[in-house]
Amino acid sequence: MTAVDFAAFVERLSEIACETILPFFRTALGAADKNVGGAFDPVTEADHAAEAAMRRLIMTTFPSHGIIGEEFGSIRSDAEFVWVLDPIDGTKSFIAGLPTWGSLIGLLHNGAPTYGVLVQPFTRERFIGDGGGAVWRGPGQGGELVERKLTTRLCDSFAEATLLTTSPLLYTEDKLAAFRRVEAVVRLSRYGGDCYAFAMLAAGHVDCVIESGLKTYDIAPLIPIIEGAGGVVTDWAGGSAVQGGDIVATGCAQLHVRALKLLEG
Amino acid sequence: MTAVDFAAFVERLSEIACETILPFFRTALGAADKNVGGAFDPVTEADHAAEAAMRRLIMTTFPSHGIIGEEFGSIRSDAEFVWVLDPIDGTKSFIAGLPTWGSLIGLLHNGAPTYGVLVQPFTRERFIGDGGGAVWRGPGQGGELVERKLTTRLCDSFAEATLLTTSPLLYTEDKLAAFRRVEAVVRLSRYGGDCYAFAMLAAGHVDCVIESGLKTYDIAPLIPIIEGAGGVVTDWAGGSAVQGGDIVATGCAQLHVRALKLLEG
Repeated sequence: MTAVDFAAFVERLSEIACETILPFFRTALGAADKNVGGAFDPVTEADHAAEAAMRRLIMTTFPSHGIIGEEFGSIRSDAEFVWVLDPIDGTKSFIAGLPTWGSLIGLLHNGAPTYGVLVQPFTRERFIGDGGGAVWRGPGQGGELVERKLTTRLCDSFAEATLLTTSPLLYTEDKLAAFRRVEAVVRLSRYGGDCYAFAMLAAGHVDCVIESGLKTYDIAPLIPIIEGAGGVVTDWAGGSAVQGGDIVATGCAQLHVRALKLLEG
Repeated sequence: MTAVDFAAFVERLSEIACETILPFFRTALGAADKNVGGAFDPVTEADHAAEAAMRRLIMTTFPSHGIIGEEFGSIRSDAEFVWVLDPIDGTKSFIAGLPTWGSLIGLLHNGAPTYGVLVQPFTRERFIGDGGGAVWRGPGQGGELVERKLTTRLCDSFAEATLLTTSPLLYTEDKLAAFRRVEAVVRLSRYGGDCYAFAMLAAGHVDCVIESGLKTYDIAPLIPIIEGAGGVVTDWAGGSAVQGGDIVATGCAQLHVRALKLLEG
């Protein structure tokens, strides 16, 4: 199976995400709390319905493939091909009605991220990457669907850089101190975004995205998009981002070196 | 001139905003810095072009009307009818590529906000209110334009409430302490949004929006939308929000009383 073969299959998964999730967006919904007594972590019916439908299609089409999903856990996670699914990355934005969330669909080949899509059902956008290249599909000026190449922006100085993180409230105290060292030297720091922040980095609108405590399904599908657009994404120690954890992405390699130094302290 | 008369005129202004701003969204643009040596406050060419075009249409159609605009200042601000324009509210989101910004168009009659529109050109949304009612127009499930009534959500306890603010970085230290007193007791606190946060309150997705240091043009156009949807919006002392300053909006009156007490300390 090559990138060419499964692009059409991933598009079918993307359509499932749109069809199952969009009817729930901006409707009154109960949000269950996965972490009883812990931080608020809403899960919507849409999240469950979309992942269940995507898993069904994967299991019937590719019975030998593994799946790592946010909602229903892992099966065959050591298979040659493993799908990584996060139907609604940015559930807090979702329940607040904001469009800065996305459905993440990724494919690992022998453990390495090889293909990824961020689907935004409300804005009808797709951010698609295979590590070697990345494209955006979405509405053009007149509402018709258009496609553009995704390319990160070259910016080697934090004094000129725009930084995004989802929320300082998601960091532990020591991790927040590391984040603040970067924030203190950037031109513009902005909060909110979840997966959409990484998409804006791939599209060349922002220069650095820093997050803490991500899961595999929060980041693995985004790696081929970021790298395909020319960006660099690792954990804060410069290692692989595929397992999640504390993540830093930049539009160019020079800024990434500077980011790692600041985060290390 | 009644609300019925000028709705079509406001729609023409909304179309101007879309046509002049959208071509600049997500393109490489220089951002000037209005506050030399101060906080980063980007202004785009789109901001200027849109306000200039809207002002031209207002001045040729209604020569006796006043205008208060973010980019080009005030003329006849004591006129019976005064237009309040903020072509890109949320310029920082705009330059980061995020869709959570909007064009604000408001009308004051004898100083009171009587009509307001938030236009989101990229998502093709309009949030429209006249104080007595409010509607949303935007893409439906299949992309076709639909219209829905905007109604705030009843939530009289902060323990069940979702709170939005654009960024804690925009507060002075004492104002931030007041904001944190509310944030400490809510179920979910979320950053980012600018005008779009107030629109989500009007649409019943969030319960409270708190901002500090707003200008007239940041809030006056939103007041008829918030109030038309059933919400309450004032300054932190419970006075009129029309001049801007420190603003608190809630979906229902009971939560507003609680918010004022917490902000007062």
